[in-house]
Amino acid sequence: MSVSETINAKAIELGKYVVRMTTQAGSGHPSSGLSLGHLVISLMHRHMRWDPADPWNPGNDRLVLSEGHAVPVVYAAYADLGGVVGKSRDKSHTLTAHELDRLRTVDSELDGHPNPAEGFPFFDAATGSLGQGLSVGAGLGLAARLRKCDKRIFVIIGDGESREGQVWEALDFIVDHRLTNVTPIFNANGQGQADYVSPQQSAEALTKKLEAFGWAVKVIDGHNVEQIDAALAAVPEGRPIAIVARTVKGWGVSALQTKGNHGKPLEPEQVPAAEADLDAMYAKLGVPKTADRTLVPPKPKSLAPLAHKAIQLPPFAEAMKEYGLAGALEKKKLATRRAYGVALAALGKADERIVALDGDVSNSTFANVFAKAFPDRFFECKIAEQNMISTAAGLAAAGFIPFASTFAKFLARAYDQIEMASISRANIKLCGSHAGVSLAADGPSQMSLPDLAYFRSYTETDDGFGRPACVVFHPADAIATYHCTAIAANLTGMCYIRTHRPDAPFLYDPNTKFEVGGSHQLAEGPALTIASSGYMVTVARQAVEKLAAEGVRCTLFDAYSFPLKGEPILAAARRTGGKILVVEDNYIGGLYGALAEAAARTGGVIVESLVCRRIPKSAKTPEEMFAYLGLSVADIVAKAKTLAR
Amino acid sequence: MSVSETINAKAIELGKYVVRMTTQAGSGHPSSGLSLGHLVISLMHRHMRWDPADPWNPGNDRLVLSEGHAVPVVYAAYADLGGVVGKSRDKSHTLTAHELDRLRTVDSELDGHPNPAEGFPFFDAATGSLGQGLSVGAGLGLAARLRKCDKRIFVIIGDGESREGQVWEALDFIVDHRLTNVTPIFNANGQGQADYVSPQQSAEALTKKLEAFGWAVKVIDGHNVEQIDAALAAVPEGRPIAIVARTVKGWGVSALQTKGNHGKPLEPEQVPAAEADLDAMYAKLGVPKTADRTLVPPKPKSLAPLAHKAIQLPPFAEAMKEYGLAGALEKKKLATRRAYGVALAALGKADERIVALDGDVSNSTFANVFAKAFPDRFFECKIAEQNMISTAAGLAAAGFIPFASTFAKFLARAYDQIEMASISRANIKLCGSHAGVSLAADGPSQMSLPDLAYFRSYTETDDGFGRPACVVFHPADAIATYHCTAIAANLTGMCYIRTHRPDAPFLYDPNTKFEVGGSHQLAEGPALTIASSGYMVTVARQAVEKLAAEGVRCTLFDAYSFPLKGEPILAAARRTGGKILVVEDNYIGGLYGALAEAAARTGGVIVESLVCRRIPKSAKTPEEMFAYLGLSVADIVAKAKTLAR
Repeated sequence: MSVSETINAKAIELGKYVVRMTTQAGSGHPSSGLSLGHLVISLMHRHMRWDPADPWNPGNDRLVLSEGHAVPVVYAAYADLGGVVGKSRDKSHTLTAHELDRLRTVDSELDGHPNPAEGFPFFDAATGSLGQGLSVGAGLGLAARLRKCDKRIFVIIGDGESREGQVWEALDFIVDHRLTNVTPIFNANGQGQADYVSPQQSAEALTKKLEAFGWAVKVIDGHNVEQIDAALAAVPEGRPIAIVARTVKGWGVSALQTKGNHGKPLEPEQVPAAEADLDAMYAKLGVPKTADRTLVPPKPKSLAPLAHKAIQLPPFAEAMKEYGLAGALEKKKLATRRAYGVALAALGKADERIVALDGDVSNSTFANVFAKAFPDRFFECKIAEQNMISTAAGLAAAGFIPFASTFAKFLARAYDQIEMASISRANIKLCGSHAGVSLAADGPSQMSLPDLAYFRSYTETDDGFGRPACVVFHPADAIATYHCTAIAANLTGMCYIRTHRPDAPFLYDPNTKFEVGGSHQLAEGPALTIASSGYMVTVARQAVEKLAAEGVRCTLFDAYSFPLKGEPILAAARRTGGKILVVEDNYIGGLYGALAEAAARTGGVIVESLVCRRIPKSAKTPEEMFAYLGLSVADIVAKAKTLAR
Repeated sequence: MSVSETINAKAIELGKYVVRMTTQAGSGHPSSGLSLGHLVISLMHRHMRWDPADPWNPGNDRLVLSEGHAVPVVYAAYADLGGVVGKSRDKSHTLTAHELDRLRTVDSELDGHPNPAEGFPFFDAATGSLGQGLSVGAGLGLAARLRKCDKRIFVIIGDGESREGQVWEALDFIVDHRLTNVTPIFNANGQGQADYVSPQQSAEALTKKLEAFGWAVKVIDGHNVEQIDAALAAVPEGRPIAIVARTVKGWGVSALQTKGNHGKPLEPEQVPAAEADLDAMYAKLGVPKTADRTLVPPKPKSLAPLAHKAIQLPPFAEAMKEYGLAGALEKKKLATRRAYGVALAALGKADERIVALDGDVSNSTFANVFAKAFPDRFFECKIAEQNMISTAAGLAAAGFIPFASTFAKFLARAYDQIEMASISRANIKLCGSHAGVSLAADGPSQMSLPDLAYFRSYTETDDGFGRPACVVFHPADAIATYHCTAIAANLTGMCYIRTHRPDAPFLYDPNTKFEVGGSHQLAEGPALTIASSGYMVTVARQAVEKLAAEGVRCTLFDAYSFPLKGEPILAAARRTGGKILVVEDNYIGGLYGALAEAAARTGGVIVESLVCRRIPKSAKTPEEMFAYLGLSVADIVAKAKTLAR
């Protein structure tokens, strides 16, 4: 049998699995999978250099299935090749065709959408929220270049999916960074979920757009093996290559080809007719019914994973001097965002796994300290935060430790990508700067106010490996920022570091220890316990000093991390009249939420709050802003007096 | 003086204001404003048909300044025309040149970025988080068409900003919907913040891309009045027109033209030299120094605002029958997402202000019930959620009541746009379907787990008009969904309605009253108070029945709205041993957070929770999923027994 015949025969054979798996599961997207049979088999059985027995080998070519709902066809092809599944090499087994029927069940590795963390290591990232895969591929492409590995990354994207703006951000990014090792394949089957795809996403329109974005485009029939072959074998000449493949949704099965069949499996009684339809394709294509088993992917080069090791930073003062901030040591004050930049550069010096990404604001987030020191490991993502986060997830999948920074407000642009990264258990570190109302003058469009509620939401969710789905650091001074950034780098999993614009005085001895979920007591007094975090610690400390001068001595905590260990603060509260006043620069759901939940688990402690309870506007200074919002030193003093015993 | 001379002279004059305003404020982006002088003046003084004395007139042509940081030049032009500022007609005054110096102060209408809600009604939406303005313009364009008004909408977009994928979503949307009344103007000044813009965003690249996206493109010198004139006067022939204007960042001021001057005002001592630079432009351009005051914009047609009125729905059963769901009335069960569709269609019948948008999943969210009934008021946004939300904000600014729906998970794609809409006080209604872990089979990429924490974060923030920044509805059955959707339509401000995939039994009498922040008691018993919301009420109710059968009679609350009035539930808890068990299908920060905060304000009630504390995966049924996550009926029963007195 010729290779072409084999692939055609396999497309029919695996098509049957797709139909049966989804019917057995009672849900899924058989029509999408059928449209991809020839492409997926051409990739997995022929063009991708990878080892089904070792899907963890970093030298393997990679496939990112951006239109994740089509995944059953990949599972079927994977079983056909005897691919290995499991959460680790130790706990792995060869996927059998029989197991395909366990699609979407709770004890299966075969989730409804690609989900590597549940034991399908062929994939690098969870997909299924559309438009993110090409960015993941870009991250994998950058990683391959850093590792001097000539692997290729293929990304399959739906035509309807290409409406997502992130796809166009990724296309720009790939051209900017000359990542010709990344090949997007657009699956132009012409049908979306609720309707046909727009003419704006037709194969013709996509082709024009891709060319205008600087790409070489190969337009092919996605069911023609020779055309697929030629497109996949094409060598980029300067510009990266994109493939636009015209396909038939529900290929081979007439019942799945009409509009309205997106995401609908056949009823069991429809399966025999579907199988008959597919059987008829053998004759139609002129290929024998028994599929050849000799077609296997070419072997990849073996590449060792990047070695894990603890990353140690130099003492704070040393790093500050190295990166030109000796003056701040004398003044004993510095914005936390500047300390982040120093820590990031020091981390980069200590470990080559550290990479950084920023969205055209590196001179504000201070990721530019790293960029200057390690330009080859800094990736300018321009004003396109969605692509930045998914690219970071791709870099993380390849073993790097990416720090992605922008204004905290603009990270919200990528909250969906961040949730997908959490499902991938991506080891990404996010830094959101200029957070909260202390930004003042620029106004609310540049602040970030629901971010602590959002990120805290993840922090008490186990990622399945005994770790929080996200760890949050909200440091109050430069020293805390320096140490928390180092902790984040050494943790495995997603972290969020929240920094602020204004200079803040040093509150800590440079050798202070910080930890996940930790807090530090900054003042002791019997009248009331006050808890705060980030820049508001500085404001609360001024209030505590003023209160002390008036004879109202309060206990003050800096609760700088979630998931918060609340007990030390609750214990202090029990010693100070049973009350806690929380001071925050964001909407509800952050520290106030965490301490209220901790208090409500045991009862007996009352928690009150001064948080941002009004949509902010511009104000000339942070102090003017605090006064506008009832968060000034005077407001804290007044509120504390009403609560103090 | 010729018009051209006047505009040139004004560009110089207003440039001086831009320099002085930002220096006075001590922050801001003078170089961006200077690049737009000729364009803004040509628009505001000459091409836009609008009334500076009545910026609220819906018949006015509109300007959306997507690159919001450039706003001082608009403020200066507005003051030059004697434009009126204020939060309402009653409380308004003419902006004077003197007031420009109050830029970015807390008592000024002139926020650091466009912020209509603070009293600058010339704008329709807060901008400053980049890439959103063209979508807002698309919403305004749709609204104009619905109102049969021939107004034009101009949108100024930065070249660096055009890296944001949302811009390309909006460009597709405008072509799909043939909105030739919307004219984007790309400000190609070549400089971003941290660096020059990428060649991918050069004027040449933008032109190619726009043409490939189906646009007619006029490339002009953005400081040449004749070229600006011709481009703005061009009449679309089929395709919409986009303008690419080459400009000079820091036009007229040499100190602001070098790289690294983004977002940096001049120091006071630099201002005289800048003014001298600008003064020299008079001679250079050959225009007299005294600017002509006779240039005023053409008068618009007057158009009445859409009338506010209460929207009444027919009885539940009547609407159910009208939209083909009589069967559900007999079975007494229906998915909340289906009831949403019925309510939406009934609202559409009751009031023409109701419009709906969806992202290619209207047959899942059931917005398609509305789409079938009112196709002219339904806008298919395809798979591009960011554009959908900002378009909704544009429709809301024009007086419509837009309901935007997609999977709750995919709304996260637009959380930044949602925060911007909250700053605009946009009257938008969001419906997120398939929320939470009851989705099961599709897996976590399609669920939404931090959404309640995120949206609840807004609910205790005042929008400045005595309303919550967002109201959340999380109905447990079809009847609750029907009524809550009607409440949302009648509220002014942002609402989030969270619906679920599975069928849920009817829990309520069809005439039950629902309210913002409300809850209903569904069972009475002395052993323990259990609170839940959404689909989990059905699960908790099964647990309560099972517990009752074992002699453990519990009180059950359906807490279906935030900001939650917690007192009835706390009062019940005090009667049932002082404990509440919260049952939720999402990560922390939702109902558990709300009740913990309520309890911690007074003390004396313990709140425990069963929430999603593990990242989910696929499971065949909701029940299998609940068991995996410790949220099954059996888990609730077991936990309740440990807490029951």
